[in-house]
Amino acid sequence: MKITIVGLGLIGASIARALQGKAYLTGIDTNTDSIKKGLKDGIIVEGDHSLSLAATSDLVVIALPVGEIVETALGLIDHLKRGTVITDTGSTKSHIVSRVIASWPWFVGSHPIAGSEFSGYDAARADLFRSGVSVITPSASTEGYCIEVVKRLWQMCGAQTFEMSPEKHDAVMASISHLPHLLSFVFMHLARDLNNVSNLFGKAFTDFTRIAGSDPVIWRDIFMDNKQHIMPRIEQYLQALKHIQSLIADNREQELEELLRVYMKTRRSLYEYPG
Amino acid sequence: MKITIVGLGLIGASIARALQGKAYLTGIDTNTDSIKKGLKDGIIVEGDHSLSLAATSDLVVIALPVGEIVETALGLIDHLKRGTVITDTGSTKSHIVSRVIASWPWFVGSHPIAGSEFSGYDAARADLFRSGVSVITPSASTEGYCIEVVKRLWQMCGAQTFEMSPEKHDAVMASISHLPHLLSFVFMHLARDLNNVSNLFGKAFTDFTRIAGSDPVIWRDIFMDNKQHIMPRIEQYLQALKHIQSLIADNREQELEELLRVYMKTRRSLYEYPG
Repeated sequence: MKITIVGLGLIGASIARALQGKAYLTGIDTNTDSIKKGLKDGIIVEGDHSLSLAATSDLVVIALPVGEIVETALGLIDHLKRGTVITDTGSTKSHIVSRVIASWPWFVGSHPIAGSEFSGYDAARADLFRSGVSVITPSASTEGYCIEVVKRLWQMCGAQTFEMSPEKHDAVMASISHLPHLLSFVFMHLARDLNNVSNLFGKAFTDFTRIAGSDPVIWRDIFMDNKQHIMPRIEQYLQALKHIQSLIADNREQELEELLRVYMKTRRSLYEYPG
Repeated sequence: MKITIVGLGLIGASIARALQGKAYLTGIDTNTDSIKKGLKDGIIVEGDHSLSLAATSDLVVIALPVGEIVETALGLIDHLKRGTVITDTGSTKSHIVSRVIASWPWFVGSHPIAGSEFSGYDAARADLFRSGVSVITPSASTEGYCIEVVKRLWQMCGAQTFEMSPEKHDAVMASISHLPHLLSFVFMHLARDLNNVSNLFGKAFTDFTRIAGSDPVIWRDIFMDNKQHIMPRIEQYLQALKHIQSLIADNREQELEELLRVYMKTRRSLYEYPG
């Protein structure tokens, strides 16, 4: 299988590393350094900045920030034979899928639930997707073989696949991923003077703030693109935070304890806990 | 050295496990089960529910929720000879230190920066404090030997010690620990319906929400006791969240990206990052 990956950042280069030796891999990136490194590391067989390089591919994977995916997909289709499957790896799906599919019905959106607060070629790892889940978001009219090709891609990377509509995906991800990232970023507003007490950071601080070190362009794009689902979630969070603020302000200790117990039970119910 | 530990929960029983064989250990707990387990496991030599058991100790460690520490300390001093050092392990210090020291000048507050979202005897681990930091918060008038005894306790547990005033401790901990816990708890308000998509939880979700599984009584006490420092932090966070909300609402993409970049750089500056 001949696969072209557009964007050799954390996600694209990790796909290339995972597929090394299992497919004929072409890399496209405007960053010449990433292409050079990919060729030198042997994770791509050919590479350049031009989208025309994808011409004879069986599958094209667009691994770029959300804000660049649609334009890149529309730029690619002049070079591809009809029926060639395109997928992407963006963290939002509704807008991307509807806009690309209007011009290229063989597009299937996907979103690997994997990542890191680091980005770029050097952060890539062959095992990034292993034992993880990749969501696939076909539309009602997507042909079956397109779904199969994209499923196979993620299975070859070691991930399980899970199908959802693009709309459901975006609603769920607003809660599971987008809001936690937003809230962790915002916490940095209070962390500007903490360098001199970094010896006191516990695991709670480290884990809670880790994702605030994520790439600003990637997350700007996600917050803007999924605005529809994120905005009501921010509002809900603000109301809940104001509520707990008032419980503390008014010394309503018993209600505070009861609320914290509900929250604790909610968290514990989401995971398998010992005992 | 004869050490009495009041409270054989996560922290108290972890201290007992860490000190096993290094000191003569007595356990006091109203929970008969924890005492029985401690005796059976051999991590305490004697144990009961009565504070009088501490009578001949060289050091008493109160490892109870913040709301029970002052009352317990005042109850202990009837049984102790003058000069016996008492310490605690609470996550707040100002109120506890000032109130206990007024009756017992040989009290030195401490706060091991260690913990877990789990609590209770069964969650205890001998290595909980190893390679960590324990903050010690003497007052200006604390006698030197009292500080030394408490330092030695934490060093025997494998922790480094760090001295701070009780007031500074509470201000710093509001930012480093108390607010992250509060914000993670509140996020559970949005997570009530996520059980059916738990296969899609990534590391971001897991890490961000982990501390929301913490004990509600312990955290009610901390939020109430350190209200003075936590309230302005909540207000600051609300303002920062409303600001990013307005940037998204008004499509101010460039300002959003710049703000996320400041936050990303703040996070990265707090830790040693590769590259």
